[in-house]
Amino acid sequence: MINEKLPKMWYGGDYNPEQWNAATMEEDIRMFKLANIDIATVNVFSWALIQPSEDSYDFSGLDAIIERLTKDNIYICLATSTGAHPAWMAHRYPDVTRVDYEGRKRKFGGRHNSCPNSPTYRKYAAELASRLAERYAKHEGLVVWHISNEYGGYCYCDNCAEAFRGWLKQRYNTIEALNQAWYTAFWGHTFYDWAEIVPPNALSEEWAGNRTNFQTISLDYRRFQSDSLLDCFKLEYDAIRKYSKDVQITTNLMGTYPELDYFKWGQAMDVVSWDNYPSLDTPISYTAMSHALMRGLKSGKPFMLMEQTPSQQNWQPYNSLKRPGVMRLWSYQAVAHGADTVMFFQLRRSIGACEKYHGAVIEHVGHEHTRVFRECAELGAELVKLGDELLDSRHQSKVGIVFDWENRWALDLTSGPTIDLKYVEQVHRYYDAFFKHNIQADMISVEEQFDQYEIVVAPVMYMVKPGFAEKVEQFVADGGTFITTFFSGIVNENDIVTTGGYPGKLRNVLGIWAEEIDALLPSQSNEIVMNATYGELNGTYSCNTLCDLIHSEGAEVLATYGTDFYKGMPALTRHAFGKGKAWYVATNGDEAFLSDLIKRIVDEQGIRPLVSPVQGIEVTERVKGEHRYLFVLNHNADATEVDLGNLAGTDLLTDQEVSGKHILAAKGVMIVKH
Amino acid sequence: MINEKLPKMWYGGDYNPEQWNAATMEEDIRMFKLANIDIATVNVFSWALIQPSEDSYDFSGLDAIIERLTKDNIYICLATSTGAHPAWMAHRYPDVTRVDYEGRKRKFGGRHNSCPNSPTYRKYAAELASRLAERYAKHEGLVVWHISNEYGGYCYCDNCAEAFRGWLKQRYNTIEALNQAWYTAFWGHTFYDWAEIVPPNALSEEWAGNRTNFQTISLDYRRFQSDSLLDCFKLEYDAIRKYSKDVQITTNLMGTYPELDYFKWGQAMDVVSWDNYPSLDTPISYTAMSHALMRGLKSGKPFMLMEQTPSQQNWQPYNSLKRPGVMRLWSYQAVAHGADTVMFFQLRRSIGACEKYHGAVIEHVGHEHTRVFRECAELGAELVKLGDELLDSRHQSKVGIVFDWENRWALDLTSGPTIDLKYVEQVHRYYDAFFKHNIQADMISVEEQFDQYEIVVAPVMYMVKPGFAEKVEQFVADGGTFITTFFSGIVNENDIVTTGGYPGKLRNVLGIWAEEIDALLPSQSNEIVMNATYGELNGTYSCNTLCDLIHSEGAEVLATYGTDFYKGMPALTRHAFGKGKAWYVATNGDEAFLSDLIKRIVDEQGIRPLVSPVQGIEVTERVKGEHRYLFVLNHNADATEVDLGNLAGTDLLTDQEVSGKHILAAKGVMIVKH
Amino acid sequence: MINEKLPKMWYGGDYNPEQWNAATMEEDIRMFKLANIDIATVNVFSWALIQPSEDSYDFSGLDAIIERLTKDNIYICLATSTGAHPAWMAHRYPDVTRVDYEGRKRKFGGRHNSCPNSPTYRKYAAELASRLAERYAKHEGLVVWHISNEYGGYCYCDNCAEAFRGWLKQRYNTIEALNQAWYTAFWGHTFYDWAEIVPPNALSEEWAGNRTNFQTISLDYRRFQSDSLLDCFKLEYDAIRKYSKDVQITTNLMGTYPELDYFKWGQAMDVVSWDNYPSLDTPISYTAMSHALMRGLKSGKPFMLMEQTPSQQNWQPYNSLKRPGVMRLWSYQAVAHGADTVMFFQLRRSIGACEKYHGAVIEHVGHEHTRVFRECAELGAELVKLGDELLDSRHQSKVGIVFDWENRWALDLTSGPTIDLKYVEQVHRYYDAFFKHNIQADMISVEEQFDQYEIVVAPVMYMVKPGFAEKVEQFVADGGTFITTFFSGIVNENDIVTTGGYPGKLRNVLGIWAEEIDALLPSQSNEIVMNATYGELNGTYSCNTLCDLIHSEGAEVLATYGTDFYKGMPALTRHAFGKGKAWYVATNGDEAFLSDLIKRIVDEQGIRPLVSPVQGIEVTERVKGEHRYLFVLNHNADATEVDLGNLAGTDLLTDQEVSGKHILAAKGVMIVKH
Repeated sequence: MINEKLPKMWYGGDYNPEQWNAATMEEDIRMFKLANIDIATVNVFSWALIQPSEDSYDFSGLDAIIERLTKDNIYICLATSTGAHPAWMAHRYPDVTRVDYEGRKRKFGGRHNSCPNSPTYRKYAAELASRLAERYAKHEGLVVWHISNEYGGYCYCDNCAEAFRGWLKQRYNTIEALNQAWYTAFWGHTFYDWAEIVPPNALSEEWAGNRTNFQTISLDYRRFQSDSLLDCFKLEYDAIRKYSKDVQITTNLMGTYPELDYFKWGQAMDVVSWDNYPSLDTPISYTAMSHALMRGLKSGKPFMLMEQTPSQQNWQPYNSLKRPGVMRLWSYQAVAHGADTVMFFQLRRSIGACEKYHGAVIEHVGHEHTRVFRECAELGAELVKLGDELLDSRHQSKVGIVFDWENRWALDLTSGPTIDLKYVEQVHRYYDAFFKHNIQADMISVEEQFDQYEIVVAPVMYMVKPGFAEKVEQFVADGGTFITTFFSGIVNENDIVTTGGYPGKLRNVLGIWAEEIDALLPSQSNEIVMNATYGELNGTYSCNTLCDLIHSEGAEVLATYGTDFYKGMPALTRHAFGKGKAWYVATNGDEAFLSDLIKRIVDEQGIRPLVSPVQGIEVTERVKGEHRYLFVLNHNADATEVDLGNLAGTDLLTDQEVSGKHILAAKGVMIVKH
Repeated sequence: MINEKLPKMWYGGDYNPEQWNAATMEEDIRMFKLANIDIATVNVFSWALIQPSEDSYDFSGLDAIIERLTKDNIYICLATSTGAHPAWMAHRYPDVTRVDYEGRKRKFGGRHNSCPNSPTYRKYAAELASRLAERYAKHEGLVVWHISNEYGGYCYCDNCAEAFRGWLKQRYNTIEALNQAWYTAFWGHTFYDWAEIVPPNALSEEWAGNRTNFQTISLDYRRFQSDSLLDCFKLEYDAIRKYSKDVQITTNLMGTYPELDYFKWGQAMDVVSWDNYPSLDTPISYTAMSHALMRGLKSGKPFMLMEQTPSQQNWQPYNSLKRPGVMRLWSYQAVAHGADTVMFFQLRRSIGACEKYHGAVIEHVGHEHTRVFRECAELGAELVKLGDELLDSRHQSKVGIVFDWENRWALDLTSGPTIDLKYVEQVHRYYDAFFKHNIQADMISVEEQFDQYEIVVAPVMYMVKPGFAEKVEQFVADGGTFITTFFSGIVNENDIVTTGGYPGKLRNVLGIWAEEIDALLPSQSNEIVMNATYGELNGTYSCNTLCDLIHSEGAEVLATYGTDFYKGMPALTRHAFGKGKAWYVATNGDEAFLSDLIKRIVDEQGIRPLVSPVQGIEVTERVKGEHRYLFVLNHNADATEVDLGNLAGTDLLTDQEVSGKHILAAKGVMIVKH
Repeated sequence: MINEKLPKMWYGGDYNPEQWNAATMEEDIRMFKLANIDIATVNVFSWALIQPSEDSYDFSGLDAIIERLTKDNIYICLATSTGAHPAWMAHRYPDVTRVDYEGRKRKFGGRHNSCPNSPTYRKYAAELASRLAERYAKHEGLVVWHISNEYGGYCYCDNCAEAFRGWLKQRYNTIEALNQAWYTAFWGHTFYDWAEIVPPNALSEEWAGNRTNFQTISLDYRRFQSDSLLDCFKLEYDAIRKYSKDVQITTNLMGTYPELDYFKWGQAMDVVSWDNYPSLDTPISYTAMSHALMRGLKSGKPFMLMEQTPSQQNWQPYNSLKRPGVMRLWSYQAVAHGADTVMFFQLRRSIGACEKYHGAVIEHVGHEHTRVFRECAELGAELVKLGDELLDSRHQSKVGIVFDWENRWALDLTSGPTIDLKYVEQVHRYYDAFFKHNIQADMISVEEQFDQYEIVVAPVMYMVKPGFAEKVEQFVADGGTFITTFFSGIVNENDIVTTGGYPGKLRNVLGIWAEEIDALLPSQSNEIVMNATYGELNGTYSCNTLCDLIHSEGAEVLATYGTDFYKGMPALTRHAFGKGKAWYVATNGDEAFLSDLIKRIVDEQGIRPLVSPVQGIEVTERVKGEHRYLFVLNHNADATEVDLGNLAGTDLLTDQEVSGKHILAAKGVMIVKH
């Protein structure tokens, strides 16, 4: 992501001078320079200012902002402002506002409030993007386009209903094929005309957000809405590209946000950017996984950290301050996982409306003599020092963990066998097990090439889409290690069960048959009893949530259940298939089990940790050409010793040579070039 | 319920071959024969298939299904499919969809989605029933009609509003009488014209489902909606009866379902059928009570067990598998309480939509080599062996427990004195006390003849309808034992308080006056202190929820409160009235109290248990002519000894002679003919 | 509040003879006389009876009621009945019903159901008030007007939207000023035309009742709705005043009810009245605070206790009986805090609809031989004995505690830093600390004169309106003691942050700067470590919720934080300013801290308790001319000793001389004239 205009890790963030006067902006810029801030995201929510009425545009304010910033060598991330439509538009053209899940037509208010299939919205959003591109494409200060803001939210209006019918015709061609795919013979749902189809919401097939009578209808509506919003992005993308040939275009994503199929979105973006808002109690490995997922959207390409808070948030129930050093530590965590920018929401705190208690580089007090500003300025200086050293470096992981939004939707929508099965939590449990062993893992789509990995894990791979099982078989046959779990291989891409025995198309490679699936009450548990000692993997572990009752069909049984009527049935199997192995974890084992299991598998595979694991120490590595950059992050509240072993190199932050045992300060960071 | 075509306990269930192809149906029938399945409920949700448009009907698919099943001696329970209207109908005639509690007009989706007062729905539902009857009435395979499916759900549309006004005119004749009954002088609610009346929902008098400003309006709306749905049933009933003179007609009920007054429904049905879906943690005695209630709808006539799952459900939060033996045990529990059929939902698992994780005789794997199928086949063989032996046998209970839906509605709707009073729970507490002592009890309506019982219990008989108090007085005067509780005798059939002192019309027979009613916080309790030793009933018990502050007016005071300012006031009284006794339980005693109280009363009455009680062993008895059939069911996870005493007979399941002490296997069943 | 017609503490309450027949009314009046009941509130919900159609009025029923009561010297509190519009009106003029928070148009039902900006409602409500006034203004029995009933609830209809725009034009004059005040540069919300503005509810800016995107819009809507309802009150007030020149007019308020700015309402009423409905677990000091607040609405003028229950309520989850003596005790508690009447809801229990289980002087049994009636009659006799002795006496408090509805709304609406900050709870915590030390406190508005107090406390004075900071500075400069807390001085009257450092305009008087605000998880706490011993205030206390990270700018640091990265920063400061002191409590200290802090401050100030504090004993004092009336109330369940010290006087209830140590019976009361 090296940019010739600003060939370093960009440092800055959202900036809304339209909320302030010129004198304040001067003060801001004075302070930006103190903190080595060199990029500002502007025009995020200025549609109403730029287009004060249907027929008029006024760029004078934005001109002034861009000129003033650029004058002081602060570069521009230029947003298109389409994340919130103007009040006049909602008043004049009600089609721009959404109909919500409860079927209520919304009025003007909030943001992310536009119907993605509103003709008015599409027309004026594209028009605005076009005019912005025409005007600023060649501006020397411009380094990246930022379309809209945090896309999300579904609409259920009549325009969406009609567009949904069109989308369905594209997908199914005939109403008979749709009836087949949607399984409408159930509950007498046969459709004879496309016009009979209505969006699934609280007035028709759904309730409580993700409860539904017809999983496939609901699944298709999620696909359709994700696509509709993506179409809005693409409309603006195309409008910009017409004038701006070589400036990259992004929109800010939100990690594991449920509503959009980000792998599809990643393909449409030049560079991925995202907003990282962990809470005080978010596991470190969850943030790490989110970074890896964002990196995975474009197969490992570095991404932009578009937003994070310098201090506290406002929309959590309890908005803790980031402790001293934590903002820096978490910034480097992003970089460690592939970020090539460090950006904040926001540079100056607003003083009105709902985000006024969201932290900013410049606090309400308005001067630089604050803890928060000092920490920001110190980090700014470090990033100047790092220069372009790390830019465009990549990760070389031996482990890929599959994440799939459609699978997630299907699991969220399923009725039975348990409400306690949460897909993202399951994926995180596996990511975390590798993380704790300092084994770097990529987060990959079902479409990703598997042959670049030694191990591919697909937790709860409930939905097996066309080609996936075949790819897994090829991967294992060629020597790869594949791991999947209970409740996998159940349905096809339309959420229709694959008959003939679970886990359906994965049955062959796994060498097992799951006859039944027991759901445990929260008060219940079972046991995983290892048949023998496999390294650290031995003895008895606890498990809960779901227990597949499986039979081996060739797989080696490594563990069995310890209690209940299926005591003695397999709980963990490994199937030799071609040159590789396919593991099946038949139940939701406890943390110790997962840790020992993953340890066993990576040991078997001969995969070594980057550095010997120490509690609270996170390690990743980026590679560029012949250089390797080892990131060592101390999340502990105390100084902690790490042993770099025979690795020796230079800590880019201190310029000191480091090797062997090293004490890292509380919340400390090392970037060892070796 | 002996049927000449199929003179045995029918065995089978819901079957939806319209979701499958012909080859699969052949496989299914092959397996049905393996399992001795001899009845299939078909056409439950096929309206859209049979009537593809307003003007056309197509019975070819149903013809084929019926022919094919019948060919292999699988009999037909023929549903009318009106449990879900077609999409084209909702599209063309929006009056068929409901307006929900929140006042929202629903679109097409789900099932049980038709407004019961929709002219379109009524017209086409009756038309469909009529055509089905005309076509299949004489079919040799047809053994029972199944109208619609699991009726339920209320509508609040304008058609319902208008029909409600008509229903009210029928009930009250004049608007003045309605004002009187509804107590509209309160809060200035006087109506001067019927047109001013609107349905009570979240837009008018109610909130949160059963909170209301005007109990009587809400009570009448429940009566009206129950009647409206019953009218729909009757419309189809009459349409069928026109062509089908001698085939019995049913619809499947749902046990203690709150929305419909099933005692009224029972009168309109030829035979009661119901769907039994206990959870893993449903008390055994609750299921027993539900069976007894369904039996009581037609004064003890055997009923059909229309649905149960062979293995797991899908719509519970945690859908546990039925443990080995449990499906058989619970099937016999239904028979023990009066079922003359054992039927499942469903014979083959669907592979799409929301019920695909609901268990079935034939699982997704598609073959017979599963635990579930084996258990089903074993039971099927036993039922063949039982033949017609048990059919039409009845229960001879000495105890009747009153259950009344209108009383339940009134209690659900009441504002004060406590939210912790749950009618069904209270009734179950008394049923359970008899159950644990192996004293068989019938569940009866307020209209039932009391003189067939020695003991009549009416827990929380809050609403005393015309004639009820007089019937109780006569029953007790003639020597019966009547038991009622706190918060009884408070209101009339319109939920208007009977002035002059609680418990109103029951005051005379009970010989007490309840001056005040205290509501306890969940953290509070009081004590029931027995005045003397009455068999096992002695010492001090705990009580909570409500404490009536009563004064004896002739009743003997057996216990008093132990604490608080009403310490020493009566907590349990017994009033000698004519030849009998009337008991008043003034507070919600703990489980030990209820157990000891009921033990004391049955001992006093000289009523003996069928078999000496053993924990986890359920016992009932059916009688036909000179034969008595004792059911002994072991709900324990271990083999358990029961002592049949001097009873001797033949276990119909093993043909062995049994008497005295006997070890029953875990989940085991005996049916002793003696 | 001495009234020449009835110069004593009025005793009676709501009475609805329209629900009964004439014979019952005769019985009622017979019993009223037994209980010395001398006032009845009538016509509260009779609009539909009085105006049976648009064109007709019928006062015959009301005439009869008033005549009959007056004949027996029962005086009339005459309500206007506008708390619930007639059904015919809702049917004919849908504009009278509200649109709710979810945007749903309501139908007829409930009460408090009229849109305050409905032209129909305003026209006919004023008309009704006018006709009532014309007819009854001169009636000898009339002693007070009671407009409508428990005003409350917001509407979001189009009429309200239009009226809101008018209200905004009045407030802001120009759309530019509104954009400025509302901070609409945020999220592109700039308005160009008043017509673009819509009410903030679940369809626009808000969700979940008090979550909002734009605090200022939501704040203004609360102001507007409170004003709209107040306008309805004023319309009726003016209509009545036209005919009734000298009878005082009130409406019944509800203590700390959130939706209305009662300080504004108090100014429009001749006398404040309110309905006191504590639960079994409401802290005694919370009820005391509520009385003080109602007294404060008119700067200490005695108020009417318009409603309380004689026994139990119906709308609580658990409606406990008032224990023996409690109704009397709580009646005197009201008097102790400034009530000049003791009135009930209601005199006779209704037998239908939702309030039939609300207690009444005459219970459902219908006669006087009940505990409840006996207690009412005993109190009635005492009030006769007290005569006019206490009427119009006032409180002389040295402490004023600021309460502000706009500040409350702003805090309820704020997004961040914590959801655990509850304004009323915080105010109550301070009130309670004084209460426990027997230091009488007034509840005062931000507009109140501070110079009448030695101490003014303003907990969480988040919103500082124009002139407030200046008033505080003057008060402290002149020698007053001011106390405020964390999260104070943050915003102006439009909820816009005061830049330049928290606590904004209070920074000068407090001598501190709050750099950051940390929000603690519920599981977290910090410590307040006193720097030295200040009387009882010493050692270490626990604190939670919010911790301001402050720097002293002249204030003396009395305590610091004990843990976390801000350990050692000030947690409690005291700033000498002019002749007085300004305290800042930087965090939410535990109960012991608040108790010791307040003890320290009152000791420092030389303020002595009325009587030495004893657990469960409440003490207040009313003063009239040279007479002081000391109220001593024993809330304990046991007799308790109080030490009156050298105070000596006559207990007005027993006519006994009392002084020194005295045993007060459980739930006992003394009123010592000295």
